Amino acid sequence: MKASIITIGDEILIGQIVDTNSAFIAKSLDRIGIEIHEMISISDSKEHILKTFSKFQNKVDLVIITGGLGPTKDDITKKTFCDYFDDELIVNQEVLKHVTQLIEGFFKRPITQINKDQALVPSKCTVLHNQVGTAPGMWMKKENTVFISLPGVPFEMKYLVENEIIPKVVEEYKRPYILHKTVLTYGIGESLLAETIENWENNLPDFIKLAYLPSLGSVRLRLSARGTNKELLEKAISENVISLSKIIGDSIVGFEEDETLEKIVGRFLTQQGKTISTAESCTGGKIAQVLTSVSGASNYFKGSVVSYATETKVSLLGIHAELIQKHSVVSAEVAQQMAVNVRNLMKTDYAIATTGNAGPSKGESEAEVGAVFIALATPNEVIIEEFNFGQPREKVIDRAVVKSLEMLRKEILKNVQ
Amino acid sequence: MKASIITIGDEILIGQIVDTNSAFIAKSLDRIGIEIHEMISISDSKEHILKTFSKFQNKVDLVIITGGLGPTKDDITKKTFCDYFDDELIVNQEVLKHVTQLIEGFFKRPITQINKDQALVPSKCTVLHNQVGTAPGMWMKKENTVFISLPGVPFEMKYLVENEIIPKVVEEYKRPYILHKTVLTYGIGESLLAETIENWENNLPDFIKLAYLPSLGSVRLRLSARGTNKELLEKAISENVISLSKIIGDSIVGFEEDETLEKIVGRFLTQQGKTISTAESCTGGKIAQVLTSVSGASNYFKGSVVSYATETKVSLLGIHAELIQKHSVVSAEVAQQMAVNVRNLMKTDYAIATTGNAGPSKGESEAEVGAVFIALATPNEVIIEEFNFGQPREKVIDRAVVKSLEMLRKEILKNVQ
Repeated sequence: MKASIITIGDEILIGQIVDTNSAFIAKSLDRIGIEIHEMISISDSKEHILKTFSKFQNKVDLVIITGGLGPTKDDITKKTFCDYFDDELIVNQEVLKHVTQLIEGFFKRPITQINKDQALVPSKCTVLHNQVGTAPGMWMKKENTVFISLPGVPFEMKYLVENEIIPKVVEEYKRPYILHKTVLTYGIGESLLAETIENWENNLPDFIKLAYLPSLGSVRLRLSARGTNKELLEKAISENVISLSKIIGDSIVGFEEDETLEKIVGRFLTQQGKTISTAESCTGGKIAQVLTSVSGASNYFKGSVVSYATETKVSLLGIHAELIQKHSVVSAEVAQQMAVNVRNLMKTDYAIATTGNAGPSKGESEAEVGAVFIALATPNEVIIEEFNFGQPREKVIDRAVVKSLEMLRKEILKNVQ
Repeated sequence: MKASIITIGDEILIGQIVDTNSAFIAKSLDRIGIEIHEMISISDSKEHILKTFSKFQNKVDLVIITGGLGPTKDDITKKTFCDYFDDELIVNQEVLKHVTQLIEGFFKRPITQINKDQALVPSKCTVLHNQVGTAPGMWMKKENTVFISLPGVPFEMKYLVENEIIPKVVEEYKRPYILHKTVLTYGIGESLLAETIENWENNLPDFIKLAYLPSLGSVRLRLSARGTNKELLEKAISENVISLSKIIGDSIVGFEEDETLEKIVGRFLTQQGKTISTAESCTGGKIAQVLTSVSGASNYFKGSVVSYATETKVSLLGIHAELIQKHSVVSAEVAQQMAVNVRNLMKTDYAIATTGNAGPSKGESEAEVGAVFIALATPNEVIIEEFNFGQPREKVIDRAVVKSLEMLRKEILKNVQ
């Protein structure tokens, strides 16, 4: 089964924004065994869109279109759908009701005609209801090809792909059996990982594909097995994951597709009934923000003191001014005191503290750009590590966040056995 | 003058990596007045590539291809070039010399046959010398269309675009001028904005195109003028921006392409020598993190108390337990107390406080999912607003962050006059 992805919008063609939608859609379709034939970005011109539709007609089973649905002048996809399917726009009452609720109830704005026009859809289309935005998705079939139109706003597009399109496709189309298994590794670089598992990778059966998906501090290994015999695929996947674990077991932190370090840490803390707090300087509250991005974080996260200014470290965290004077604000000693004091302040089992210079220029201290001290207070001790995370600013902060969560995970794991 | 961009590589078609090369190339060409006809991503198959070449033959002036050049990719692009141009691969001595220097001199590795093969190029092509990598770029013309092949490694591609392609194109082709102007608006929805400026938009001259680029809480308006008379374009753009300002002046927050609300707020606070702190519950430290994502934030941001647990609100922020019992932890009263107390604790001029339920399930309080109270303490008063930001969790948090920065900006602006 094949699909093509069309992105409509001049903002992409002039390079003002990077098209991340196509990659998300491709990944989602690939997971259910659909092959992507082409991804194409075209302008908001009706002729260009029609021509592209015809090009894919009966050549692929699915054509997914994003963009060109916004409530503004450059909104063109709907009209083009009407032309291509010889259809007309009608008001969909359910969508109108939803749009009205969203605009008046949620955004607290007067509803405008342009808002109401979002409820206009081709009469023959199947509406894909967009619960997180105003522009509905549309599903229309012509001969052997289904054309699906989605809004270009990424989180609305994602919502419709995950909650409407994938379930509908899975239900309506027979596809080869495809089995994915994700192995999340932390703390080992992509190239080193590749070298370490080279033999294992070379011995994978032909029907298992391996993908490296690196992101900050972690590499996701995705094994994809494609075939007709489900049992065979499952057996092959699990056998190879076991043999992989024997090689890089220490670096493997999880096997869930959407697994993250903050979720893992959160689960451990919940299981053990332990709590955590943070005292953040250079990370500016991002560790707290990442920890609380997990639902249920209130079970283990009590709070944070973001002591960005030195005086805040003194007044709120009770760091002694002498200590700061003696060792400078970016020092192991200050990081340690921050961790211990916030742990006591918040009465938690664990506490993470960061102090450093994220740059671009030197701050109050003499610490060089990229220098970060991370302290982890556990019930029994305080572990302090020094890093230089280089540049730029946002990378320094992100690396400090990942590192501190890694340190936390290691410590919590000790109590699991 | 028109161009198309082709990206070759299965890793893009399965969504494993996002294609950022095309956006970079498009932006670079757009700046010198070249219009992008299409961007297309296709597989590593020779047939597919040839078909795509023919499709663009004599339809555009330039076709820029990235990917399919790496030694591991079996150099599919070079072979396809030879087929398409009826040519053969020969060793380019200059490239061979460069590759040898790079591998043996710089990487200190013995040169392999695969390395040497990188010096093989079609005999009729103009070589674009890649000083930062081993794979050379290739420039070949057929009839009215020039085909340019570049390596897929972003920084090698960028080097060749900036140092080889743009200068060569500028020298060899006559092009129209193109001017862009970005207008950043906040606090007014895309559709309401569109209605408000409809007449203005309809009166734009034909040579000025308008694009709406919405993102959370903000809409970027981009005016693009294209023509031969540079002065005329500049005059028209500035005149229309002025007339636009007369209509939506209050919503316009900036004119820089990379302008953000946190940067604007940061500049105002710095100019006025004012400081800010935050007390965050449902936003979990994200307001602090967004404020500190701006370099120089230490000039105005003192810190934050992320009081996620109710007990932390009591112990660290000194919120009275009775107040919480009486009004519930998610209430205007608690938000107000949080803002006032953190402002006093941190001795700042302004303070932002948030309390709410980000979901997915109801928390300690009875507040419904999405309910958020934001309190802004200024030197003179406390402004409290109630919202329901709906779902999902991450959107509730992001909307609360944007809203609170908007509230802050409005207040600070009052003191600008």
